[in-house]
Amino acid sequence: MSTPSGDPAAGRQRLAWAREHMPVHAALRERYAPRRPLEGLCVAVCSHIEAKTGVLLETLAAAGAEVVFTGSEPGSSQDDVVAALNEQPGICGYARRGVSEAELEALHLLALDHAPALILDDAAELTARLVHRRPELLPGLRGVCEQTTTGVQRIQAMLGDGALRFPAYAVNHTPMKHEFDNIHGTGESALTNLMLTTNLLLAGKQVVVAGYGDCGVGLAHKARAWGAQVTVTEVEPRRALRAHMNGFAVRPMAEAAEIGELFITATGSRDVIRREHFERMRDGAVLANAGHFNVEISADDLAGLAVERRQAREGVEAFELADGRTLHLVCEGRLVNLAAPTAMGHPAEVMDQTFGVQFMAALHLLEHHEALAAGVHAVPDEVDRRTAELKLETLGVATDRLTEAQQRFRHAWRAEEILAR
Amino acid sequence: MSTPSGDPAAGRQRLAWAREHMPVHAALRERYAPRRPLEGLCVAVCSHIEAKTGVLLETLAAAGAEVVFTGSEPGSSQDDVVAALNEQPGICGYARRGVSEAELEALHLLALDHAPALILDDAAELTARLVHRRPELLPGLRGVCEQTTTGVQRIQAMLGDGALRFPAYAVNHTPMKHEFDNIHGTGESALTNLMLTTNLLLAGKQVVVAGYGDCGVGLAHKARAWGAQVTVTEVEPRRALRAHMNGFAVRPMAEAAEIGELFITATGSRDVIRREHFERMRDGAVLANAGHFNVEISADDLAGLAVERRQAREGVEAFELADGRTLHLVCEGRLVNLAAPTAMGHPAEVMDQTFGVQFMAALHLLEHHEALAAGVHAVPDEVDRRTAELKLETLGVATDRLTEAQQRFRHAWRAEEILAR
Amino acid sequence: MSTPSGDPAAGRQRLAWAREHMPVHAALRERYAPRRPLEGLCVAVCSHIEAKTGVLLETLAAAGAEVVFTGSEPGSSQDDVVAALNEQPGICGYARRGVSEAELEALHLLALDHAPALILDDAAELTARLVHRRPELLPGLRGVCEQTTTGVQRIQAMLGDGALRFPAYAVNHTPMKHEFDNIHGTGESALTNLMLTTNLLLAGKQVVVAGYGDCGVGLAHKARAWGAQVTVTEVEPRRALRAHMNGFAVRPMAEAAEIGELFITATGSRDVIRREHFERMRDGAVLANAGHFNVEISADDLAGLAVERRQAREGVEAFELADGRTLHLVCEGRLVNLAAPTAMGHPAEVMDQTFGVQFMAALHLLEHHEALAAGVHAVPDEVDRRTAELKLETLGVATDRLTEAQQRFRHAWRAEEILAR
Amino acid sequence: MSTPSGDPAAGRQRLAWAREHMPVHAALRERYAPRRPLEGLCVAVCSHIEAKTGVLLETLAAAGAEVVFTGSEPGSSQDDVVAALNEQPGICGYARRGVSEAELEALHLLALDHAPALILDDAAELTARLVHRRPELLPGLRGVCEQTTTGVQRIQAMLGDGALRFPAYAVNHTPMKHEFDNIHGTGESALTNLMLTTNLLLAGKQVVVAGYGDCGVGLAHKARAWGAQVTVTEVEPRRALRAHMNGFAVRPMAEAAEIGELFITATGSRDVIRREHFERMRDGAVLANAGHFNVEISADDLAGLAVERRQAREGVEAFELADGRTLHLVCEGRLVNLAAPTAMGHPAEVMDQTFGVQFMAALHLLEHHEALAAGVHAVPDEVDRRTAELKLETLGVATDRLTEAQQRFRHAWRAEEILAR
Repeated sequence: MSTPSGDPAAGRQRLAWAREHMPVHAALRERYAPRRPLEGLCVAVCSHIEAKTGVLLETLAAAGAEVVFTGSEPGSSQDDVVAALNEQPGICGYARRGVSEAELEALHLLALDHAPALILDDAAELTARLVHRRPELLPGLRGVCEQTTTGVQRIQAMLGDGALRFPAYAVNHTPMKHEFDNIHGTGESALTNLMLTTNLLLAGKQVVVAGYGDCGVGLAHKARAWGAQVTVTEVEPRRALRAHMNGFAVRPMAEAAEIGELFITATGSRDVIRREHFERMRDGAVLANAGHFNVEISADDLAGLAVERRQAREGVEAFELADGRTLHLVCEGRLVNLAAPTAMGHPAEVMDQTFGVQFMAALHLLEHHEALAAGVHAVPDEVDRRTAELKLETLGVATDRLTEAQQRFRHAWRAEEILAR
Repeated sequence: MSTPSGDPAAGRQRLAWAREHMPVHAALRERYAPRRPLEGLCVAVCSHIEAKTGVLLETLAAAGAEVVFTGSEPGSSQDDVVAALNEQPGICGYARRGVSEAELEALHLLALDHAPALILDDAAELTARLVHRRPELLPGLRGVCEQTTTGVQRIQAMLGDGALRFPAYAVNHTPMKHEFDNIHGTGESALTNLMLTTNLLLAGKQVVVAGYGDCGVGLAHKARAWGAQVTVTEVEPRRALRAHMNGFAVRPMAEAAEIGELFITATGSRDVIRREHFERMRDGAVLANAGHFNVEISADDLAGLAVERRQAREGVEAFELADGRTLHLVCEGRLVNLAAPTAMGHPAEVMDQTFGVQFMAALHLLEHHEALAAGVHAVPDEVDRRTAELKLETLGVATDRLTEAQQRFRHAWRAEEILAR
Repeated sequence: MSTPSGDPAAGRQRLAWAREHMPVHAALRERYAPRRPLEGLCVAVCSHIEAKTGVLLETLAAAGAEVVFTGSEPGSSQDDVVAALNEQPGICGYARRGVSEAELEALHLLALDHAPALILDDAAELTARLVHRRPELLPGLRGVCEQTTTGVQRIQAMLGDGALRFPAYAVNHTPMKHEFDNIHGTGESALTNLMLTTNLLLAGKQVVVAGYGDCGVGLAHKARAWGAQVTVTEVEPRRALRAHMNGFAVRPMAEAAEIGELFITATGSRDVIRREHFERMRDGAVLANAGHFNVEISADDLAGLAVERRQAREGVEAFELADGRTLHLVCEGRLVNLAAPTAMGHPAEVMDQTFGVQFMAALHLLEHHEALAAGVHAVPDEVDRRTAELKLETLGVATDRLTEAQQRFRHAWRAEEILAR
Repeated sequence: MSTPSGDPAAGRQRLAWAREHMPVHAALRERYAPRRPLEGLCVAVCSHIEAKTGVLLETLAAAGAEVVFTGSEPGSSQDDVVAALNEQPGICGYARRGVSEAELEALHLLALDHAPALILDDAAELTARLVHRRPELLPGLRGVCEQTTTGVQRIQAMLGDGALRFPAYAVNHTPMKHEFDNIHGTGESALTNLMLTTNLLLAGKQVVVAGYGDCGVGLAHKARAWGAQVTVTEVEPRRALRAHMNGFAVRPMAEAAEIGELFITATGSRDVIRREHFERMRDGAVLANAGHFNVEISADDLAGLAVERRQAREGVEAFELADGRTLHLVCEGRLVNLAAPTAMGHPAEVMDQTFGVQFMAALHLLEHHEALAAGVHAVPDEVDRRTAELKLETLGVATDRLTEAQQRFRHAWRAEEILAR
């Protein structure tokens, strides 16, 4: 396997821009560079290796870690950033844009050769690879911090299979991650990339959002806010009701399929849009995915129905069906905010926050890993809260503080205490 | 204490309207009237005794309970509904509009004389009264279901004081309650009542919302959606950041006080707006509360600063300060959606849902109370989920069901399994 | 006909509150009281005679006019305000809450007995009465200022009939009126009154808004912003397309009738909802009107279909149909923000602006009436602009001013001039 | 000057995609290809020569015109589309991406050599060039259709200068153009391109929108809808008040400059952000333009203040000031939705509509040009209305039709007529 061949100067420019827009990481480096709490430890980061991830790697290195990186997805790493990172002391790694699934596995195995003590993972890609392919490394692994809905679900599946020997922090489940990265980060970047890749308009468009988890919430609200009529599909009744009470049409996909002009999946499941749905769709429908894996829209079913396939434009493939309808699949069903021709990944500010809580969780996990059983653990709320305080400081946003009387009031329960003036 | 003297015919009309708009309760009565799972048990309900609460009482009675009711707040019960309820077999109670705090206590004690086996409470009013004033009834009490943020906090305070001898379900904390009742129920009704009581306009108004919990979220988003410029105050950093990322100005109250034209508190705390804030406010500022207790705005501090007080209009008192400014307090700082001249309480549909999960939680608590330790417990998610399914049925909203392949996918973690076609 | 019998003290309190929240009028009185430009002229105001209208009357009187007032709608005047106004020097009038159409005409004729030189009208009520019933007064009438969509349309109908002998200013058509009063004033107050009269929830509700003029725009956007699913009906293609591009479902009423749970008409037309629509509606549908006349929902058709009618609650009549469905008509189809039990009319701030431009237009019309042909005229933009500047001053909102270079740039057209640095 | 050298195959693919998403043009070609109303006429189109414009050219050619095209802006044409268009019979033209102002003029003059009878213009670029540089062609010019705010203003400036000898239709001022293209087209595409060019997040961002005309309205509402805190600057009082009542902070630029993190200009004026504003800005502020000319942000003032300039990333130049602050200028202040690295111009559906009304206006102008005086004319409302009907048909959106009774009601004015049942 050849080494990446990006232009490091271009990568350095991208890193500089990201660094300027990630003030939480500047604060973290300032705080932890003098103490070097990760001194001597090998920390593996598996993610989309582009500029924002690079800033996390720099922060980890500044905190003393020997950092090894690898890409979490075949199409989402940037070669110039990879080249620029490989120039930096304390950081080395293996990632390339546009690899096959087999090449991706090979890159992962190269990273695992460094025998990491800690993995900061995305979709549990490197963790699953280690457990499945390099179980001999398990004793050296102190723990995993996982930042996606999909990854936490996958680690829980490992646990169900009895394959988990280490503690994992569900960083995705912290308020500081999923309420911001998923809603605003995925929400904004999936829509901006999708609309530019297709050169279409949201206003007046019939949009179907599959899934009303945090990503779906972001997509549905932001699409409607720009003038789309949005239909939501769900399997979970509370989520369905939430969407209904927020004013969305909630329908099964079989009905939504007949209505939509633009479909976006964000479920973490597979085959959410499949043959039975393609068969009912309007001519010209556009299909895109904002979930981690490219299995939410069944490309196989679509290919099976097609009598002809052609490139409709960069990033869009047209599938002509026997009945004359054409359906358009965006970026082969890969997550559109990373795979689109215009893709820059998530916005910098939101990754500053996501990687901030990843870093804080990693420090905490290392300190407490011996006390933690193998399994998936919630990140302690205090860790999340401190990250929020740091973020607010960088934003210059001030909160109130409870007075002593207000703190006492929290413990009052007798009517006289409460109503006392 | 005299009995209430409302017109039962008017009460019956109100109950009929509420019944028509509470289809979840119709379904519950249909399901449980034949089985009568509460047969022979005394169930006490403490709440705002108006038509929607009446429908809950009817459902409890239909399920076999001996129902006793009492009001949770001095000004929020309706005498005609009280009269109409007292006509119904299996239901009796004690409530009156416009009582003093002392009279409220007396009404509570009358209800407690029935020695309830179960309390469905609001703000833990009747629970606190029983624990504090009638501890001899504790052995007969199988448990409590509490439907407000304030009440759960208060029961936790009892627990901290070692005063809790029974299990309590934090019904407020179920998704089916707080994500709907607090956000949409309080959000809509506090604003509609406030705007009609003052005859003012939200569009273009500087509104300060104190607290960005569920109630505050509802108030802030709905006020902005009608054209207000909204500033949020918070003490919790994640909530503050959430408000910031949703586009609100987040400031300490000391700064917000100088900006606001209309203030709404929804914190569950006390003295959130106090002397130091009144001193900085703009002439003509209007102050209202959407939290349970009338202590969020310090009426004492306001009275202390005033050189003259007068009725500005029905439901609004004007406080003239020495420096010539006038501040307006709405409904004496009582929760505006219940105390306003126009107040009808929460909308019917949202109470159908809140009382639906209260009822379902009550059934579950009774069935399992022996297995539950004294303390505050989360309502099992399955109870909440079943209520959501019932609500969706009444709305005619359909969700998708996971296919078998999708169910298996939840447990897949190896790359090959996930990407398998 | 007996004189009104409201309590003048209560009326004075209402006037005081309105005066405090109408700073544009305070500024107008300050400016025009010394000059008294209306000295000696009889000015008739026909409108909803409640506190905000009272403030306009006070401003007219302060500017020197002999003011006579009368109500524009049978149910929208407040007796206590009428009583308080009749105490004031320079103001007298005829209005009473809850009159019949015949009594309304009688009140109008009493007002016309004062032989006004100028009419400030609402829905052209007094103007139509004068033209139709007192044509002998036409020579003394210098002009009319009309503040509603309906009224301007009605005066244009008079013109089409050859009945117009005087100039009329279409005050409704000024930006300062229809973009604020209709969108925000009607939008907010129709919804707050409707939701409190019915005690229902907007979130999750299927709402049909008939008409996407300014009133309909306000209603549709504000209902959706609180969580309703809104369907719009229109007859004008650009308006229909605007609604579509803003994300609303646009359908003919025959289809919308099957979907809606809550219908609000704002078209200025008649029988917009009629037999063919009632026949398709869902059981329990609620029908309300936000247009001037109570003819938008065909009450006759509804009565014809009903096998029984009953009061469902204050302000809501239930019509039981032969097939078992019940339809609910709010306030007899009268404009809900004025006829509802909770009605306070439009919010004060927006009436400050509407009446501000009415007043400014009246001054201008008087000054220029001799130069104006009989017919409907646009209010000169400069009059509207000056009113806006006054309003911004009272709000403390500052705008930029064009620099000299920017003013010159407005007249540049050659490429070199435009791109010159 | 060399001919453009784009790849025609790539251009054909782009044209095919645009054609599929412009159903109004398909309908126009179907209607007018048989009649060929433009037979034998030379029609010049000056615009951003990319795929959507290409579809307009095809429709003009199908209607019989000899079409000549040229670019309206130095950086907004696409060479491959230019090449593909030049292959088509009846179409030829002169445009290239990335020309200088001098080269742009040369291309315009080449187009003018065809002596057009009609110009469909953008920003009055070709019209100004003809009037200024080729006045000898004026006698052959039957008229101009202008589609931008800037262009109409510029033609009015020509009129003020006495330079106008022909009728011009202000196509920009039709509802079908400015209420859709400006609000939704510019609104969406300026924001998507800006956010991807900078890789920044709208949520939580302090955004300043200069100008609250239609473009500014679109930008301000859509930015806020995604979580930005938006401040608006204006010079026109009604627009300022509209922004205020819609919940925006309205401030002079001198104040807004201190607050903003992201500035977007959409005023049609020049030097809206200049030295005095740069001096007050926060470190890191990002500056972008959504108006036609790159003079809204004073690049000269910025250059004058800078001690160093560097490429911060593709499409973003960093200006380092003496005091250590850095300001970022996006795309040299050119309109960001056309000049950004990711730029595709406006979305296809909105251009279908804009070019639809351009085409319909052009037909009408040709038919009536002899009856029209030299000067700027409103497009007859009927032309706009018919275009709307065509668009609604392609969308499958149905409106209601007035009944005969409703049509009569429009002409009723006597109380008895209106209230008659």
